[in-house]
Parts: sequence; C-alpha cells; structure tokens
Amino acid sequence: MQWYVVASLLTLLTSSQGILTTLSQTHGRYNYDYATIPFLAEIFKLLVSTIFLWRECKKSPPPRMTTEWKTVRLYPIPSIIYLIHNNVQFATLTFVDTSTYQIMGNLKIVTTGILFRLFLKRKLSNLQWMAIVLLAVGTTTSQVKGCGEASCDSLFSSPIQGYMLGVLSACLSALAGVYTEFLMKKNNDTLYWQNVQLYTFGAIFNMGRLFLDDFRGGFENGPWWDRLFNGYTITTWLVVLNLGSTGLLVSWLMKYADNIVKVYSTSMAMLLTMVLSVFLFTFKPTLQLLLGIIICIMSLQMYFAPPSTLVDLPVSVPASQSAPVKTDS
Amino acid sequence: MQWYVVASLLTLLTSSQGILTTLSQTHGRYNYDYATIPFLAEIFKLLVSTIFLWRECKKSPPPRMTTEWKTVRLYPIPSIIYLIHNNVQFATLTFVDTSTYQIMGNLKIVTTGILFRLFLKRKLSNLQWMAIVLLAVGTTTSQVKGCGEASCDSLFSSPIQGYMLGVLSACLSALAGVYTEFLMKKNNDTLYWQNVQLYTFGAIFNMGRLFLDDFRGGFENGPWWDRLFNGYTITTWLVVLNLGSTGLLVSWLMKYADNIVKVYSTSMAMLLTMVLSVFLFTFKPTLQLLLGIIICIMSLQMYFAPPSTLVDLPVSVPASQSAPVKTDS
Repeated sequence: MQWYVVASLLTLLTSSQGILTTLSQTHGRYNYDYATIPFLAEIFKLLVSTIFLWRECKKSPPPRMTTEWKTVRLYPIPSIIYLIHNNVQFATLTFVDTSTYQIMGNLKIVTTGILFRLFLKRKLSNLQWMAIVLLAVGTTTSQVKGCGEASCDSLFSSPIQGYMLGVLSACLSALAGVYTEFLMKKNNDTLYWQNVQLYTFGAIFNMGRLFLDDFRGGFENGPWWDRLFNGYTITTWLVVLNLGSTGLLVSWLMKYADNIVKVYSTSMAMLLTMVLSVFLFTFKPTLQLLLGIIICIMSLQMYFAPPSTLVDLPVSVPASQSAPVKTDS
Repeated sequence: MQWYVVASLLTLLTSSQGILTTLSQTHGRYNYDYATIPFLAEIFKLLVSTIFLWRECKKSPPPRMTTEWKTVRLYPIPSIIYLIHNNVQFATLTFVDTSTYQIMGNLKIVTTGILFRLFLKRKLSNLQWMAIVLLAVGTTTSQVKGCGEASCDSLFSSPIQGYMLGVLSACLSALAGVYTEFLMKKNNDTLYWQNVQLYTFGAIFNMGRLFLDDFRGGFENGPWWDRLFNGYTITTWLVVLNLGSTGLLVSWLMKYADNIVKVYSTSMAMLLTMVLSVFLFTFKPTLQLLLGIIICIMSLQMYFAPPSTLVDLPVSVPASQSAPVKTDS
C-alpha cells in the first residue's frame, strides 16, 4: 500500500472523528463516560492486531517477533509520555482558556519537525522547514477568532506559566510521536507484533485511568466496568471504531512513512472538519478558514512535491539535452 | 546601486507614507485638500528628474533620448490607466465597504504576477507562483478583522458587482505597473528622460483632476491654484516629498528590477506600517498580524532565495564532483 493512500484515509477518518464526536452528544453533552472511548479503542486495536498476527503466524516463514524483555520494556514508554502529556495539558488549562490552548496546540507541528531532526537524525531541506512552519501558521490562521466571538483578548494576556506549559505540552506530544516512530522502525519485527505490545500497554494505562477516576469519585457510581457501556448509542460505537481505526493507520504510518506525514494528515483533517462543519452544523465559513486552507495546501506542495517540479534546475537541463546527443555520436 | 537596496528604501518610505499621512491629520481629518498631494508630488518628481537629465546632458557622450512622437505618445498611457482605475475604485466602493475593499486590494499581487507572465513573457517557477499567492494570502491574513471590530459579516455578503469591480480594479492596477515596466525597458533611453515624459503627463492628468473637482464644486472656493497650499504644515510637505521620492524609486525599479520586486516592497511596507502603528498609535497587535508577517517573510524567501539554498539538488553534486575528475584524466 502506498503511504499517501494511508495518509488520505487517516485524514478522512480523523476528520470524521470530530463530526462523529459532535453527533454522539445529546443536547450538547455526553450521555456516556468519555474516558471509556480511548480504552475501548485500545481494546479494538489490540483485537484487530492479534487476529492479523495470528493469521501471519500460521503462514511460513513465521513473522519476525522479538520477545526479549530488553525490547518489550520500551513499548509502555509512549503510553507513559501520553500520561505525562495529559497532566501537563490539564495544568495548562488552569492558566489559559481553551481557545488560547487550541492555538498553542499548533506548536506541536513545529516541535515534531525539530525532534524528528534531532532524535531520528532526518535531514530536511530549508524549503521543507519552511513548509512545516507554514503548516503551523496555516492551521493557526484557520483558528483566528472572527469578530463578534467572545474571549478574544486572552491570547497575549495569559500568565507566563501558561505559555511555558503550552510549549512543554507541544514538546511531549512531539516526543511521543517521534519515540513511537523510533520504536516501530527499530527492528524488522512484524507491525502486528509491535502493535500488540503497544496496545496491550495502552489498554493497561487507559484502564488505570478509569480506576483512578473511580477512586477520585469515591466509587460513588460503582466500578467502571459496571457502567462501561452506559449511555452508548450506535454513534458512540462508531466513535470507538473510528478512533481505533485511526490508531491502526497511525501505527502503519510510523513504521512505513514518518511523523511528518502523520502531522500533515491530521492538520488537513482539522481543516476538513471545519469545512464539513459549515455544511453539517451551523458553523459559519470565515475568511481565515479559506486563507488557512490555501496556506496548508501550499505547504503540502512545498514539503512533498519533487524539488524539480518546484524550481527550475539549470543543472538538469544540459544533462537531459546532452544525453540524446551522446547516443547519436 | 543594487536592486534590493532600492527595494528596501522603497519599503521604508512607503511605510513612512502611511505614518506621515496619519500624522498630517488634525483631530482625525485633513485641513488641506488631499488631491493637491499627488499633483505636487508629480511636480517634485518632474523637477528632480529634469535636474538629473540636465546634468547628464552636460556630460559626454550625451544620454540616449528618443523624442519621436511614436514613442512619446506611449507615456500618458500609465496615467490614463490610473485614471480609469480611480473611477473603478470609486464605483467599487459604492457596492462594498472599505474593509472588504482593502481585503480585495490584495488581489493585485496575484494579477500583477499573471500580467507579468502574459505581457512581459517572464517565466516564473512553480515555487515563485506559490510565493506570489502566499504573499497575497499573508497580507490578507494580517488584515483579518479581529474580534470586537465592527462590520465583520460584510465580506461574503456584498453584491456580485462589487466583487467583479474589485477584480477589474486589481487587473487595472497590475496593468498600469506592467505597462510602465514595459515602457521603461522598451529602449535604452536614460531613466531621467523617461521620467520627465512620465511625470509631465502625470502632472497634467493630476492638474485635470483638480480642475474637475473645482468644476464639480461650481468654483465655490475659487480655482485650485488660489488655495493650493491652504492648511499645509511641515508634515504635509513631508507627505509630498515622501510620495515623490517613492515614485522616483518605483521608476528606478521598473527599469532596473521588475514589478514583482515592487509588489514585495510595498507589501512589506504595509506590514511594517502596521507594526509601527502598534508603537506610534494605539493600534493593538493581533495574532493575524504576526501570522501575516511570518507568511510574507516565507514568501520572500521562496521567491528570491537561490533555489539551491532551498532544496537539496542531487543533480549538482555529481556535476561539481566530476569536474575535477575530468581535468585529472
């Protein structure tokens, strides 16, 4: 499968995630416990990966699987980073409002580029660096508050701790992505075995979160497994399936493509969600959305188009012209 | 003189023009007739160009000057295009409000690129086309209305005639620029002789405008020359000198650089004015201004940086490596 097919699919599914989550609300609120969604998505991913691994094991030669503790112990690390990230996110929101938080979230595009360069040692051309900055600028542009919207002055007036935590949050989010890519490409193990390890720890950490919520609530509503599917509708199940599927696609991209491809996919999904919201909900199209889309499409071209299609390469012209001359002589 | 020195000077002067014009107002209005400013600026440019031409004529060999009517008759054309443009501008404003008009004004960046390609037959790389679109997007982004500002919903709700006239206006503005470049590069005449012709017609057309204003007003305040300097302060004179100087720099760029350089200069000036206004006046810095500046700086790099500094060119590496090998063998 080509990486851009998987990336496009990820864009479509990530974009549906926003729409489905909105549709799963009743009168603007969730009738189910939202924390159960990522847990069930982990279980779904684990099931799918196990089935695929089992099928692969029946074939010959059997798939490559490293079961040494030295390697297995690396797989909970992404979950641990996400756990820290969630807490930093929570702390950030005590200093800044949600719209400032959303704007700062675009920083992770740039931090992913930086960690991608530093940790994975991938070289990017200057044009690709510019493309990454433009992608962040483009997504931010689309989120600029229009006139008449509340809480506009907050962006430059939050306490300094809020901005520092926002930057930390962007770094952690990038680190989790870059670390996962490192893990998936570290050896030639089959993707499904890597997934099984990743999602087993993912499921455990998410279960821990549900336990913790119960503990904090003093078990007033009983243990989480008793009310796991409370308030679930068909749309809620679609949210779970969709979140699980996007996770599987991200794993695939981490092994066979890279973090930058993932960042482009999810950024484009964000814009697509906004465009779809114009048609599906009462979201008003804004000039800044249009401008953001143009910027991101330009950025996409700058990053992925072959350089020869972007600039005129005077070096290549004599080379291609001289080739037929040589065969004639 | 290098073109980028002239271009930077044009950016500084164009930016001061906005600041000076604001400073020349008393309690938010003009105490002088604003239509006298471009007329006096034409006279200033004509004087300066005449002095330089006279000095050049004393040297030997004498400068190249084509005085055939066939060539001279082309020089009023830019003035005529600007005259039509002003009327279209006026008509546009009967359909759209000033902020929509301002946003549509950024279209002229793109139309200049198109006419530059079509009429002057200049080839641009795909990256340069993208840079031009991004420049227009960047200047537009900086102008997006912040929250709390009035008249926000007008952008997508003006009558269709308004948008059509806005596009026409952008085409005329680009046409005037591209035609002037064609004129200045048409032959090897000295710049000062070309300027003298251009500004003579410019002064005549501006004088006609003052006559027309008097005629429309029924000569109630007497003829324009009687009240030419009414309400002039030292700042008003600075506005005149500044406008005249920017005109001279634009002429220079049209002959020795091109329209795209001019478009970049004036776009950067627009952003610089906004930044200066934050410090000089009570203009509030916005996120969209910051985003617009980043986009325009990226666009500048994309357009003017040598391609080899932007992308990794695998073609050039073997070429430069093979050269010494060949001399050895």
